[in-house]
Amino acid sequence: MSVLMEQVHPPVTDLRLSKILAALADPGRLATVRTLAQKGESPCTRLQQDAGLQISRSTFSHHQKVLREAGILLVRVRGAERILSLRRDDLDSRFPGLLDLVLNTPEKLI
Amino acid sequence: MSVLMEQVHPPVTDLRLSKILAALADPGRLATVRTLAQKGESPCTRLQQDAGLQISRSTFSHHQKVLREAGILLVRVRGAERILSLRRDDLDSRFPGLLDLVLNTPEKLI
Repeated sequence: MSVLMEQVHPPVTDLRLSKILAALADPGRLATVRTLAQKGESPCTRLQQDAGLQISRSTFSHHQKVLREAGILLVRVRGAERILSLRRDDLDSRFPGLLDLVLNTPEKLI
Repeated sequence: MSVLMEQVHPPVTDLRLSKILAALADPGRLATVRTLAQKGESPCTRLQQDAGLQISRSTFSHHQKVLREAGILLVRVRGAERILSLRRDDLDSRFPGLLDLVLNTPEKLI
């Protein structure tokens, strides 16, 4: 069973464009989001590997925190693992087209 | 006659999503871009007023620099004035939909 850490996810009504843009404004965080969209829900250790991020665990944790606090990532705890997924429906309902734009931009233009 | 400061505007081929998102990730800079889209080409002093930005001149200059270096703003010098405009065609050709999304987001969701 996985547990949603309710207290640390902003409700959809609190999502703000400037905060979401700030969270996305980093190549490592963009890679995290794009990989998650491609691979689907992932344990965080596998996600870091899949995204090809050669960064420390604490830096990746920081990226997750920024993305979670902006309302982009959902983090659940399953045993010793954190399971990450995209809040795609929330983002699409609040800022239609934003996530698609980020996902459809060619790698070389990131 | 106005003079384009060629050296300080990145060519369209150098525009990058992460840099553009970082430039837009600030309520004051978002207000600058949205006001410019609404009012059209503007002298920078009038733009600051129109955007309702209660910030110092140097802070507004900094915002302009960040937007210009990301490829969002075009800055020309006409006499003692700086004339600002949006690089709408460049942005639309490189990142279709991004500017529209920023301009169409309701004020309360910024």
